[in-house]
Amino acid sequence: MKENSTTRKLHFDEAILGALKEDIPWEDVSANSVVPEGARGEAELIAKQDGVIAGLPVFCRTFELLDDSAEITLHVKEGDEVHSGQKLATVRGEMRAVLSAERTALNFLQRMSGIATYTRSVAKYLEGTNTKLLDTRKTTPGLRIFEKYAVTVGGGNNHRFNLSDGVLLKDNHIGAAGGVKEAIAAARAYAPFVRKIEVEVETLAQLKDALDAGAEIVMLDNMQGDTLKEAVKMAKGKAEIEVSGNVTKENIARLVSLGVDYISSGALTHSAPILDVSLKNLHPIG
Amino acid sequence: MKENSTTRKLHFDEAILGALKEDIPWEDVSANSVVPEGARGEAELIAKQDGVIAGLPVFCRTFELLDDSAEITLHVKEGDEVHSGQKLATVRGEMRAVLSAERTALNFLQRMSGIATYTRSVAKYLEGTNTKLLDTRKTTPGLRIFEKYAVTVGGGNNHRFNLSDGVLLKDNHIGAAGGVKEAIAAARAYAPFVRKIEVEVETLAQLKDALDAGAEIVMLDNMQGDTLKEAVKMAKGKAEIEVSGNVTKENIARLVSLGVDYISSGALTHSAPILDVSLKNLHPIG
Amino acid sequence: MKENSTTRKLHFDEAILGALKEDIPWEDVSANSVVPEGARGEAELIAKQDGVIAGLPVFCRTFELLDDSAEITLHVKEGDEVHSGQKLATVRGEMRAVLSAERTALNFLQRMSGIATYTRSVAKYLEGTNTKLLDTRKTTPGLRIFEKYAVTVGGGNNHRFNLSDGVLLKDNHIGAAGGVKEAIAAARAYAPFVRKIEVEVETLAQLKDALDAGAEIVMLDNMQGDTLKEAVKMAKGKAEIEVSGNVTKENIARLVSLGVDYISSGALTHSAPILDVSLKNLHPIG
Amino acid sequence: MKENSTTRKLHFDEAILGALKEDIPWEDVSANSVVPEGARGEAELIAKQDGVIAGLPVFCRTFELLDDSAEITLHVKEGDEVHSGQKLATVRGEMRAVLSAERTALNFLQRMSGIATYTRSVAKYLEGTNTKLLDTRKTTPGLRIFEKYAVTVGGGNNHRFNLSDGVLLKDNHIGAAGGVKEAIAAARAYAPFVRKIEVEVETLAQLKDALDAGAEIVMLDNMQGDTLKEAVKMAKGKAEIEVSGNVTKENIARLVSLGVDYISSGALTHSAPILDVSLKNLHPIG
Amino acid sequence: MKENSTTRKLHFDEAILGALKEDIPWEDVSANSVVPEGARGEAELIAKQDGVIAGLPVFCRTFELLDDSAEITLHVKEGDEVHSGQKLATVRGEMRAVLSAERTALNFLQRMSGIATYTRSVAKYLEGTNTKLLDTRKTTPGLRIFEKYAVTVGGGNNHRFNLSDGVLLKDNHIGAAGGVKEAIAAARAYAPFVRKIEVEVETLAQLKDALDAGAEIVMLDNMQGDTLKEAVKMAKGKAEIEVSGNVTKENIARLVSLGVDYISSGALTHSAPILDVSLKNLHPIG
Amino acid sequence: MKENSTTRKLHFDEAILGALKEDIPWEDVSANSVVPEGARGEAELIAKQDGVIAGLPVFCRTFELLDDSAEITLHVKEGDEVHSGQKLATVRGEMRAVLSAERTALNFLQRMSGIATYTRSVAKYLEGTNTKLLDTRKTTPGLRIFEKYAVTVGGGNNHRFNLSDGVLLKDNHIGAAGGVKEAIAAARAYAPFVRKIEVEVETLAQLKDALDAGAEIVMLDNMQGDTLKEAVKMAKGKAEIEVSGNVTKENIARLVSLGVDYISSGALTHSAPILDVSLKNLHPIG
Repeated sequence: MKENSTTRKLHFDEAILGALKEDIPWEDVSANSVVPEGARGEAELIAKQDGVIAGLPVFCRTFELLDDSAEITLHVKEGDEVHSGQKLATVRGEMRAVLSAERTALNFLQRMSGIATYTRSVAKYLEGTNTKLLDTRKTTPGLRIFEKYAVTVGGGNNHRFNLSDGVLLKDNHIGAAGGVKEAIAAARAYAPFVRKIEVEVETLAQLKDALDAGAEIVMLDNMQGDTLKEAVKMAKGKAEIEVSGNVTKENIARLVSLGVDYISSGALTHSAPILDVSLKNLHPIG
Repeated sequence: MKENSTTRKLHFDEAILGALKEDIPWEDVSANSVVPEGARGEAELIAKQDGVIAGLPVFCRTFELLDDSAEITLHVKEGDEVHSGQKLATVRGEMRAVLSAERTALNFLQRMSGIATYTRSVAKYLEGTNTKLLDTRKTTPGLRIFEKYAVTVGGGNNHRFNLSDGVLLKDNHIGAAGGVKEAIAAARAYAPFVRKIEVEVETLAQLKDALDAGAEIVMLDNMQGDTLKEAVKMAKGKAEIEVSGNVTKENIARLVSLGVDYISSGALTHSAPILDVSLKNLHPIG
Repeated sequence: MKENSTTRKLHFDEAILGALKEDIPWEDVSANSVVPEGARGEAELIAKQDGVIAGLPVFCRTFELLDDSAEITLHVKEGDEVHSGQKLATVRGEMRAVLSAERTALNFLQRMSGIATYTRSVAKYLEGTNTKLLDTRKTTPGLRIFEKYAVTVGGGNNHRFNLSDGVLLKDNHIGAAGGVKEAIAAARAYAPFVRKIEVEVETLAQLKDALDAGAEIVMLDNMQGDTLKEAVKMAKGKAEIEVSGNVTKENIARLVSLGVDYISSGALTHSAPILDVSLKNLHPIG
Repeated sequence: MKENSTTRKLHFDEAILGALKEDIPWEDVSANSVVPEGARGEAELIAKQDGVIAGLPVFCRTFELLDDSAEITLHVKEGDEVHSGQKLATVRGEMRAVLSAERTALNFLQRMSGIATYTRSVAKYLEGTNTKLLDTRKTTPGLRIFEKYAVTVGGGNNHRFNLSDGVLLKDNHIGAAGGVKEAIAAARAYAPFVRKIEVEVETLAQLKDALDAGAEIVMLDNMQGDTLKEAVKMAKGKAEIEVSGNVTKENIARLVSLGVDYISSGALTHSAPILDVSLKNLHPIG
Repeated sequence: MKENSTTRKLHFDEAILGALKEDIPWEDVSANSVVPEGARGEAELIAKQDGVIAGLPVFCRTFELLDDSAEITLHVKEGDEVHSGQKLATVRGEMRAVLSAERTALNFLQRMSGIATYTRSVAKYLEGTNTKLLDTRKTTPGLRIFEKYAVTVGGGNNHRFNLSDGVLLKDNHIGAAGGVKEAIAAARAYAPFVRKIEVEVETLAQLKDALDAGAEIVMLDNMQGDTLKEAVKMAKGKAEIEVSGNVTKENIARLVSLGVDYISSGALTHSAPILDVSLKNLHPIG
Repeated sequence: MKENSTTRKLHFDEAILGALKEDIPWEDVSANSVVPEGARGEAELIAKQDGVIAGLPVFCRTFELLDDSAEITLHVKEGDEVHSGQKLATVRGEMRAVLSAERTALNFLQRMSGIATYTRSVAKYLEGTNTKLLDTRKTTPGLRIFEKYAVTVGGGNNHRFNLSDGVLLKDNHIGAAGGVKEAIAAARAYAPFVRKIEVEVETLAQLKDALDAGAEIVMLDNMQGDTLKEAVKMAKGKAEIEVSGNVTKENIARLVSLGVDYISSGALTHSAPILDVSLKNLHPIG
């Protein structure tokens, strides 16, 4: 999911307002103590680390929702690589609102940028190849829409969004169904036909069953060395191939050379450290 | 904020239900394909890393909200140190519900445990001292209540919860007010009297002003070496002393030896990597 | 989507409560006038037309949400064919609650049963064939989850649920992209890889482009006679084939004989007349 | 309830936004694939059947809520009779938003117009008489406000809106109270005095009781032939007379000649087929 | 509106939960500091003034919503006259929950009892007469359902609940319509026929117009002495008569002797002082 | 909490919309009957009693939320003393909206002004002294934010807002902890360090314990005469002193002379009679 106005209109505002209310259940006592109502000011958004910026529309919207007169001038574009010390944006508006929205705006921006930064660092190993980097459902409860979006800013791709819009049969499903073939047959009978059926397999025997049963995507889980090589050879041309598990530089090089279609990594969303950003130098303006 | 039933009753369920709906806007196609309605099963929660477990009540509630018949037997207590491979809990219930709630339950648990684990790792440097570790407002939008709770499970302490329930005057507030003394006077005049007034200072001159004006807490921001030592000496006995900034092992030792009251760290909530946990071995029962 | 407890837990209750509040913003003046608090009674759910019953779990839940002591004994199963005059269920509970929930419970049941009845009447032309009947997104705003469920009770199948979980490129999309191939390429580049790409085509030339570009599903829109026959021949084995448009008995027979995979009909949800059902003979019990 | 800005402001937007979120839980994958952000276009709303148009304000608002720049030019007025092929409106705005809002806007419009069309077809039998056509509470859960409004566009009138704002004592209430007179007495004692009391009667004896007890409205339920004629004669001038039940052309003529005040029909809202409308010819504009 | 389970189920819980969240956005710091999780206790609800108790179901529900194990034993019934010092109820449950719910439960109870007490004090002047005491729409925003209920507990009666369920034409409406007759005609043409039409008149001429036009209820606004007497004489038997304005003991006696049907008073809800109640003597139990 | 735009943006609108929906679940039948859509008018807000006006921003917003074209010209400022008969504001907008929003706008304004008026009448006894007037948590459920704000308009000060943002240990807490010292120690160990700890004491012995244990605020509850004098002497300079209980003119004079810091009064919010205000003379404008 790339940046798009529908998602912003229908989904972002509600989450941003919720976050503002979480931080301001009554009022911002500190800001309202020292700043008179209506006084306007200007501050600068500064990167404090190198990385990929993501979430600028959310950052802007946070100020706008608290202050109709807020104007944010962006000096970078969504997805740009930014450098420590770089001025990213200028925020103008009522000083009270700037102070009150600051932390919420930064909390979104630093997390989304952290995900984009980490994703970009992994995705660059795949540049120029036919292998794509995927996220997972290991996202922060309530923020999946922001995090999956940040992954795409970083150059990753989205796997399914939720349990309703994709079929992925794992070991527990296979066990419950009585086997790979049975699970695929059950899913084909039950799931809306617009869903591709993906199966997670751990052995070559399971893989064979999955391919025979017509799985559209196979996920090779924790396969190693020759087994993995053999698996890719077996599946090639018969199904799309996703590999999950420990993604390291060495792994990636090897997997890419094997020609898998997708590499998925939960770490993109669950363990990306934030990108440090800061709002500095608030000062009154005319 | 320790584990308490009021917070659970009034706040957890709503967030958990929201997370379940985010992951299941219609139904879990995969689970419902292969598992018949009503079939019961059992699975085990396993630690895949060493760390501190936090969020067990949220983990349990996630299954219970989807399945009235769910029963979770805990083999560890909230806050316990757990080890890779350790069995933490047994989940019994309808297999469909177990599969459908699994990812949401784990997403909460892995994040909260990650925060508790990282907090504990920092807090242990403060054991046996009078210095306490504090969190900040650099939390994930919408999840502050879960994250501040996880900090306490890890042995940290909560700073203010939001902009309404604490006064913290930073450089921007001081600039707007025209000086430290003016800012404190403004806050004392405006804020409810039950709020302590905390001021962030960057120089000894500012510190002197803050103490003269009767600040109840002073936050020494990025002070170093002799300046910091002098600042602590000045403030000792006149105000509570909080130090913020880069918290490293070396810093902590030095700060503790100076006798500061509080060390605050945004990283507790914004950059703790998750603790890997997994639900394994789902199998039918009776 | 078949009947499943996850959907009931996460989605049905909220909609049912909303409907009850719509009908009872303060109280049921009539029922509360004539029935004393706590008096219990029993009534019978009677079919007043022949048809397929759907929505029994919603019917039951409506009474239960208003009365913890409500007990509904079902005499038929979801999806059963019922006959005018047949007793379908017995409702026992507080008489006030029975009277107050009656209309809301029936409003859900009569609509869902109407959809199931109409769907079954169309689906039976497809029995014993490899062609499946599909619904569309032409559903009642806010009730899609109930209506798509009712379609499956009637023997139909669900197409995509919404604009996020399926790709369907229509004339307007093709125009915007500059052609069928361009549209498919754009969708393949943009959409999550777990989505099948479906294209609506109106001519054989468009169909050829769609197949060449690797569309996974082609929708033949308003094709007739030899053109349609030729189109099916072209697409057979290369993509799944969906036919949309006026579904009449004659059409269906011909389409089935051509071997198309899917026939979709908006009328299943937007024009099914209700199935008349009634709650009768409320009388006090011990 | 006629079209009015209060209802629009307080109630329509919320339902429309809910419907848009139902259809777009994340984003419109198809539209966003092929249309670049910001590209503007124009499309036409076309009638595909003859009928009465209702819901134009809802139709417009759906696009506006997704796109601040949307401009809809209406070529017909609410309640106009439209003809198959007639151009009803021109929609201008961001092409992505036009595509994404299309189905939701049409789903509202086709249902509301269907109700208005069917209502008008019945109401015209009553033109020039003193008998009015009424709707019932047999509406779609969650959409009553839209459906009752559509009834008035079609020339019908609204009965009570819900169980709180009108008293209607039916057989079950009468049974519970121990008789018609007892039920009316109970209602008069309990209900706010601004409510008229309506009683459903099935026999002349019940009617006599109702009139003696001062019922303000009597509903003659399923009375036929001479009995009905006698009932109308008895009630005339003593209470308003509503007749419910199978409304056919023949019935209507006879009822009108008897001089009843109201004829009510659940079919207006529960069984009106939709009016087919379509958005056509989306094309880019400068 | 008397106490009834439908209103409790559909409306009370939501408002009570909202009030609890208003008072406990995170947790009850004081209670959780000093009381261990799970410790049970008992406290007593004591009247600190004489008055009429109203809101006991709300009082009970507040504790129950925070504590599944809460048990409240009532020593008085809703609507009872209570005396200063009287023990009204015993609350048993988790001590933390008792402390945390206390203020919210009392805030509801003291306001509702205040309204009931004040209403009873006025209503007793009407005992044994045919004149009834009515409330108005001058209620606390968001709490109308609780306040109108409390009025009935105190022996008053409810006027319309809102602007949708009753027609009341005041001076501004009459001005806008061009006269009393025109206003009544407009309302009769527009409003659902189940609404009685009430008109506020200030002169005998207006009253004559209202009666001629068939108003079902006339509200005599601020009429005095002989004019009022004449007005009542004119309207008697032609319409129900409501008198509004300053309600004092002397007024009431005179109005009753004139034989008006209703006296309405905004003060019942907007100016009733609270009834002081207190939760005392919390102590641990086994 | 003074008037501030953050609170307005994040909290007022939601409550105002809720109140409008409570009063207009469908439409305003009366206004819509007699006023044509779009007709504009003007009315005046008139004080009908002397008092302090509070809630003007809420008053304005109520009309604006129902009518984008509403313009309110204020002739007084928030907090001004107004006199019976004084024209406070002129409201211009669609006449339907003016009529429909009138009652809700006035219900807010009259209550908030009532609180401000009563608060000012008490606060003036404290003018020129160092003693401040405080409110309590005895507020109307759901409206605390409006009522605490009105208290400040009247010249009072806010005590804690809720159970999470302040610590106040009362008799029940002290009992549960086993004594004053134990309670304070428990609170100090548990509560976030930014909270001041306040203890309610009833005897000099308790007061001594509280001071010894370092309570930051002591609340002297129902102390009288010499005991009170002695208590103030003991606490002076060691803790802030709050006195609660029956606030009468005589009390206040005495308390002030004793030099207490705060006097708190629940009556400010729970028993202030409304200030009567009225919207008059609605008339059409060009």
